[in-house]
Amino acid sequence: MTLVKELLSGSKRALARVISQVENDAPAAHEALAALFPHTGHAHLVGVTGAPGTGKSTLVNCLTMAFRERGDSVGIVAIDPTSPYSGGAILGDRIRMRDLSGDSGVFIRSMASRGSLGGIARKTADVVKVMDAAGFDIVVIETVGAGQSEIEIARLAQTVLVVEAPGLGDDIQAFKAGILEIADILVVNKADDPRAGNTERALKGMLELADGRHVEQMIWHHGMLIAAAMPAGSSTDESWQVPIHLTNAISGDGVTALVNEIYNHRAYLNESGELSRRTYARVAAELDLQLREHLMRRLLKGVDIERLQSLIVEVASRRTAPHQAVETLLDHCE
Amino acid sequence: MTLVKELLSGSKRALARVISQVENDAPAAHEALAALFPHTGHAHLVGVTGAPGTGKSTLVNCLTMAFRERGDSVGIVAIDPTSPYSGGAILGDRIRMRDLSGDSGVFIRSMASRGSLGGIARKTADVVKVMDAAGFDIVVIETVGAGQSEIEIARLAQTVLVVEAPGLGDDIQAFKAGILEIADILVVNKADDPRAGNTERALKGMLELADGRHVEQMIWHHGMLIAAAMPAGSSTDESWQVPIHLTNAISGDGVTALVNEIYNHRAYLNESGELSRRTYARVAAELDLQLREHLMRRLLKGVDIERLQSLIVEVASRRTAPHQAVETLLDHCE
Repeated sequence: MTLVKELLSGSKRALARVISQVENDAPAAHEALAALFPHTGHAHLVGVTGAPGTGKSTLVNCLTMAFRERGDSVGIVAIDPTSPYSGGAILGDRIRMRDLSGDSGVFIRSMASRGSLGGIARKTADVVKVMDAAGFDIVVIETVGAGQSEIEIARLAQTVLVVEAPGLGDDIQAFKAGILEIADILVVNKADDPRAGNTERALKGMLELADGRHVEQMIWHHGMLIAAAMPAGSSTDESWQVPIHLTNAISGDGVTALVNEIYNHRAYLNESGELSRRTYARVAAELDLQLREHLMRRLLKGVDIERLQSLIVEVASRRTAPHQAVETLLDHCE
Repeated sequence: MTLVKELLSGSKRALARVISQVENDAPAAHEALAALFPHTGHAHLVGVTGAPGTGKSTLVNCLTMAFRERGDSVGIVAIDPTSPYSGGAILGDRIRMRDLSGDSGVFIRSMASRGSLGGIARKTADVVKVMDAAGFDIVVIETVGAGQSEIEIARLAQTVLVVEAPGLGDDIQAFKAGILEIADILVVNKADDPRAGNTERALKGMLELADGRHVEQMIWHHGMLIAAAMPAGSSTDESWQVPIHLTNAISGDGVTALVNEIYNHRAYLNESGELSRRTYARVAAELDLQLREHLMRRLLKGVDIERLQSLIVEVASRRTAPHQAVETLLDHCE
């Protein structure tokens, strides 16, 4: 627990060690997370996602410097395999990263992006909690938005930036349908490119077509608990109109306006009641996941392993249907 | 059940309707899947994944024609948002697709690629089962390999092709670390590009570095059942050396050799015992998932919803830790 105390009193070394414990599923991690939990809830969680080649990492650098200028401390969690922080590095990015490395109000942590999606999502959520408890005003979660990880970030972050770049080609454009719907703020980076106006217009058109209600279902599909028990008094009247910002992360153009928008969105979340609604949904999803783990572990304790193995072989050879095998196992453990 | 009978006797109309039921989670789908289950296990399941722009869809067309020439019927499930089959279309691809549309030994189905990853994975697995039961010799599952969906395809398919293309840039290259490890066969498409040799050499280098044992863990991470109860006698002595094939899906160069390799891999799976090992792992993962759903549903039946709501609010306001809330809920339902 000394480590937790050190972390809470501002030690970067202790912070790094606790994060490593979480990443490695060390036994001490569980205890540390429990001790840190009451200290969470201060940070504003900003998700930044987008396809490779959008200049997302450079933009995160820019944003971080702007947050710092306003006196906010910043923790960065990079789960992007192409991020300079997580070792997918291009030399130029590594150099840019140095802009931040001397600043004690900034802490950067890369996460391994391999392993099961569920495993990464859980660990990222825990690392974000640790950074939150460590007292950072803003925690930035950077991830590549080319698969389904954008849904994970939408679950975790309070303000989601989706970063696009002009001229990434039709193939990449096809991804946007899914990714657009999780954006609180859209960013067209590399706005010095003459095609930036086209990209902006295309995004505007897609925003008009988007149906906000679908997103909800997409983000929280797994949450049986949410369907059953979303706390009352948590609906929102005001709605947020997703803005589009043009930036150039190299020159810094447009970054101030984007940072202002992030603070605007934070204010909107607080004032509209949307923040507590999202928090309830996140908590319900987390309880849902943990309950499944515990129930499964409990079931396996009561099951004869040889019986289980022979059931697997029976299903594999089509003699027993999966749902029959499931019923057998459940009856057995009633 | 008439529909199932029609499907089993070869009706494409019935096949299309049952797949729609599965996609829409219709009540009839559950019954149809149960009736079709004993008829599955005939098809060889080929996964084709790769980044957008690799010419993956064109290659699937080519492969399909080659399978047909050998007398095998082919079902295609496209869960790739950039695939011409699923509407992410480029005109040229739509034209190429016509090559297959008049052939009754080919059935193409696109899947919505939106929604939760777990939901898509389950539905894809079920659609593949339906196609398998319908009697196709080969079922091709085409997906974009830019996120975590490649892990889903590795769970589902028996032979996984990872398609690369020369010169897609460093950003895309960074993805390969994860995706390479699920490949049974690597394909460098667009091999007429002068940079194809470089790509091949880079892939060879990465293959030499890859550690096969890691993959296992990545693919089946969630499977608590697998750790507990992998049936015995299912280890493999022989191992498969991942080959690299250069193809040009437009001219057809290299496609015959690639098709031969797919049949080689099928023979290897059968002869080495690896096929049953993978089948056991897949069955265990499926039972694992279904058990969690049932256990959770059962738990929620016994829980007072108001108590659940107040627990969510308590956790959201940091008065109760998530693990305490979970323990409360579990104790309540012991």
